[in-house]
Amino acid sequence: MRSIQIYDTTLRDGSQGEGISFSLLDKLQITQRLALIGVDYIEGGYPASNEKDLEYFRKVHELPLRQSKISAFGMTRRRGLTVAADPGMQALLNAGTPVCTIVGKSSDFHATEVLRVSLDENLAMIRESVDFLVQAGREVIFDAEHFFDGCKRNPDYALATIRAAAEAGAQVVVLCDTNGGTMPDEIAALTRQAVDTVQAFGVGVGIHCHNDCDLAVANSLAAVDAGAVQVQGTVNGFGERCGNADLISVMANLGLKKQGYQVLGDASFERLTELSRYVYEIANMNFRNDQPFVGPSAFAHKGGMHAHAVARATSSYEHIDPQRVGNERRILVSELSGRSNIVALTAQYGAQADPVLMNKILNAVVSMEHEGYQFEAADATFDLLVKRCAGTFRPHFQRLKYHVEVSGDGAGDLVTEATVKVQVGGQIRHEVAEGEGPVNALDAALRKALNGSYPNLNDMRLVDYRVRVVNSEAGTAARIRVVIESSDSQQLWGTVGVSENIIEASWMALVDAVEYKLHRDELNTAAPQHLDAADNPSQTADEKDAGSPSPRATHG
Amino acid sequence: MRSIQIYDTTLRDGSQGEGISFSLLDKLQITQRLALIGVDYIEGGYPASNEKDLEYFRKVHELPLRQSKISAFGMTRRRGLTVAADPGMQALLNAGTPVCTIVGKSSDFHATEVLRVSLDENLAMIRESVDFLVQAGREVIFDAEHFFDGCKRNPDYALATIRAAAEAGAQVVVLCDTNGGTMPDEIAALTRQAVDTVQAFGVGVGIHCHNDCDLAVANSLAAVDAGAVQVQGTVNGFGERCGNADLISVMANLGLKKQGYQVLGDASFERLTELSRYVYEIANMNFRNDQPFVGPSAFAHKGGMHAHAVARATSSYEHIDPQRVGNERRILVSELSGRSNIVALTAQYGAQADPVLMNKILNAVVSMEHEGYQFEAADATFDLLVKRCAGTFRPHFQRLKYHVEVSGDGAGDLVTEATVKVQVGGQIRHEVAEGEGPVNALDAALRKALNGSYPNLNDMRLVDYRVRVVNSEAGTAARIRVVIESSDSQQLWGTVGVSENIIEASWMALVDAVEYKLHRDELNTAAPQHLDAADNPSQTADEKDAGSPSPRATHG
Repeated sequence: MRSIQIYDTTLRDGSQGEGISFSLLDKLQITQRLALIGVDYIEGGYPASNEKDLEYFRKVHELPLRQSKISAFGMTRRRGLTVAADPGMQALLNAGTPVCTIVGKSSDFHATEVLRVSLDENLAMIRESVDFLVQAGREVIFDAEHFFDGCKRNPDYALATIRAAAEAGAQVVVLCDTNGGTMPDEIAALTRQAVDTVQAFGVGVGIHCHNDCDLAVANSLAAVDAGAVQVQGTVNGFGERCGNADLISVMANLGLKKQGYQVLGDASFERLTELSRYVYEIANMNFRNDQPFVGPSAFAHKGGMHAHAVARATSSYEHIDPQRVGNERRILVSELSGRSNIVALTAQYGAQADPVLMNKILNAVVSMEHEGYQFEAADATFDLLVKRCAGTFRPHFQRLKYHVEVSGDGAGDLVTEATVKVQVGGQIRHEVAEGEGPVNALDAALRKALNGSYPNLNDMRLVDYRVRVVNSEAGTAARIRVVIESSDSQQLWGTVGVSENIIEASWMALVDAVEYKLHRDELNTAAPQHLDAADNPSQTADEKDAGSPSPRATHG
Repeated sequence: MRSIQIYDTTLRDGSQGEGISFSLLDKLQITQRLALIGVDYIEGGYPASNEKDLEYFRKVHELPLRQSKISAFGMTRRRGLTVAADPGMQALLNAGTPVCTIVGKSSDFHATEVLRVSLDENLAMIRESVDFLVQAGREVIFDAEHFFDGCKRNPDYALATIRAAAEAGAQVVVLCDTNGGTMPDEIAALTRQAVDTVQAFGVGVGIHCHNDCDLAVANSLAAVDAGAVQVQGTVNGFGERCGNADLISVMANLGLKKQGYQVLGDASFERLTELSRYVYEIANMNFRNDQPFVGPSAFAHKGGMHAHAVARATSSYEHIDPQRVGNERRILVSELSGRSNIVALTAQYGAQADPVLMNKILNAVVSMEHEGYQFEAADATFDLLVKRCAGTFRPHFQRLKYHVEVSGDGAGDLVTEATVKVQVGGQIRHEVAEGEGPVNALDAALRKALNGSYPNLNDMRLVDYRVRVVNSEAGTAARIRVVIESSDSQQLWGTVGVSENIIEASWMALVDAVEYKLHRDELNTAAPQHLDAADNPSQTADEKDAGSPSPRATHG
């Protein structure tokens, strides 16, 4: 078993991704999660670049980090300065981390054309910078920028740069495919050369890949097979352009799929899904549904044939047990699904024990699918459907009437108004509200009518709204499917409405969203166990403790 | 140079992806795009599975497909039936395609445990099914399901299944990594064995990968390096679970990055970005910003250092010129899109000759994109925008007012009414109409107001309606982008509207759809040549003959 170090740079290189920006608190929280899962190195930031990163290094010492080491990132000293006089070097020392990672040029072109230094001066900058930090008691990692491109132009020089770092005392020299353009066979061959070059110094080789050719994970594995001992990457592959190597996939492949490698001392692979989603949440980005290993669709089965085969032989269409990475199998209710899908979907409700109920649910799903419903993104509507079939659904209000008006003039001035009339506990409530659009106005009027009776609705908000024409051949008179995603402090849930009228479809999804929340809150306060959390086999002990009892919460 | 066939299964295996559902029209439109880019095979569907796919095969013969061949997908004959009596085999023949692709079991476990047939019967099923279709004059491709898993359990049997298909006359045997769990080195080794097994029969080997380990593209390339001649995959990697191999990345890597391979006869790599985004639009899914080669961030540079280096030495941080895949460099100083994009888009209008006009268009596009507009699927709105900038836009009516009302009771009874007040040629027209939904009612009222003056509107209908929330974090008050697709006997065109109000956004797209038709019909009758068809260099002779002069027709 060869032990492979995992070096996370989500907080530094990952934050270069478009739309990604971490606050100081974000960075500290992600650091704790990374330490919890047991990555070897956490690159916290670039202390010379900004005040936030400086503050991070002041605070990170207070965190319990288990075996993870924090690294500060910087560049080799500037040309024409002594190392000691270089403010970047001083910033690295002041960060007070056990590890410093410095990046230098490995490509002759980048040294002379981008950095504008002679090839010898570039080697001196690398040697002196590494030596300075080693003398100061730091573990030094040298990132060889553009190593692979450099090798294609001038292999002797590229290898000379990593030899310089190795001679000066770097612990690991990391081969960077900076622009992400290298193919796996080239990565393997050049990594072997790099290993041959530095192993005499007792120095290891690392790999740092970008995903511009959709090959970052494969390239990382190819380098490890060729002798690399460290993989750098980011959680979910965040990073500039097409991102960095996704450490989630790298760790899972090295630890669970390939033979002969040891990663993550504590083997916390069951926390990979949680880590992935946590980082998405912190970055305020949507999950990638189809993300390998940890995406909500990664073990979702749609076609009738497959779902059937999965039921017959669990391993048929799954390359690993989803629980090994903390993910779960999902059987999707969809137009292609057969009866076996629905049976599997209702398993968590314990409905199979009751064939009459089961049949009712099956018939309802089939007839609703025929109308254009899909429950894939509407777990809450499905939940209410099961409750209706089981006779446990109690409406919290009667819908009597709604009315929506939109008027526009030629100049784009708009008036949008909605009225909602409902009966709540014997009382009629008739309210009016304006909104940015008709759904927003309806939502506002409905809340106005219900808030008095159900103040917990204040905690809920609509987070997404999707519209799809179900039968696009029929033009504007086609059926419209509206999916609304709602959230409160506890969870995220989806509801669906279908109608020829987009307003009616939105209204149905809106009403379901509110009813789901009211039912769930009631069950949460009424009793510890309830229908939608009863014995969900895929729910872990941690999730139960964390009080997230919904179907969605178990996969999101 | 070894020629590698590209086999697209977006319409079949891709449609198994969660949330993906293509209408018949969607499938036909995507087929045309795939043919335009020059993929070798287009798997249209599974004729035995549903009526929509049957109808697809009836209609697809009418399309101009250039060198692309359509394939119908099915399974080997059922156990215990003769081939001729098998309804699936008959469905394949009735599809009338030049190519049939049949999937069979290559894993002994799946044959005996999932399919429940003896190993010999499974071989007979493969042999007889291939032979039957070959005798009927079809080119047959055999998909060896679970080939790699099968090899790990019982290599002799897995190889026997592809030998059976090869002996029976299959053109290509395709090794499927059905559950996506195989590593690149295993793929390479087993592909070499497969090539050794079937090459004596003059039969080629293909590869079909899934992305469960984040390695589908790498695995496809590894198979090609090991001797495979065909790669199966889907546009954007759509597909079940973590998706299939993304053909966009596969084509770009084989054609532009790796040495020694020839893909896409016409080398339409500059259309890859357009193809990718078109398929996302049709599937009503968001782009993956960081998608390799074609994502909006794929050549976006954020960090000051990188952006600076890109400016100093173009190739520093880009592994290829973005224009080679029809994408563009973006420097994320601001969020605005690059100028080159817009220049390219206006090329067909000959606007570059006029720098003042060009600048006007650029400014308008930048400011509209900032509001949430996208012109990918809205060629007609873009056309009107160019006309407005050029001063050649003459409105056919003035919008004075519209009003939409929707009321519903608790029982689902709905009233939907729209009024439209316009001025046409000095006359005020104020009309009211009901509809299935608000957009349908608005459309009806607008036609009522305009039909007297423009009877050619009778020929036009709305064929699709798509809604997207532009900024999904803001819930129902977010901006809404509505894209409407309209058609008449001559062509199909798209228009777009953006507003916080879905009704207003729909109204804008509706008005543009009508204005586009009125402008185009006028130009068609007034003069043989006109702005939007003038010497479009990308228009092929076939398309001109087909009499489809619109911007949409030139790329679809």
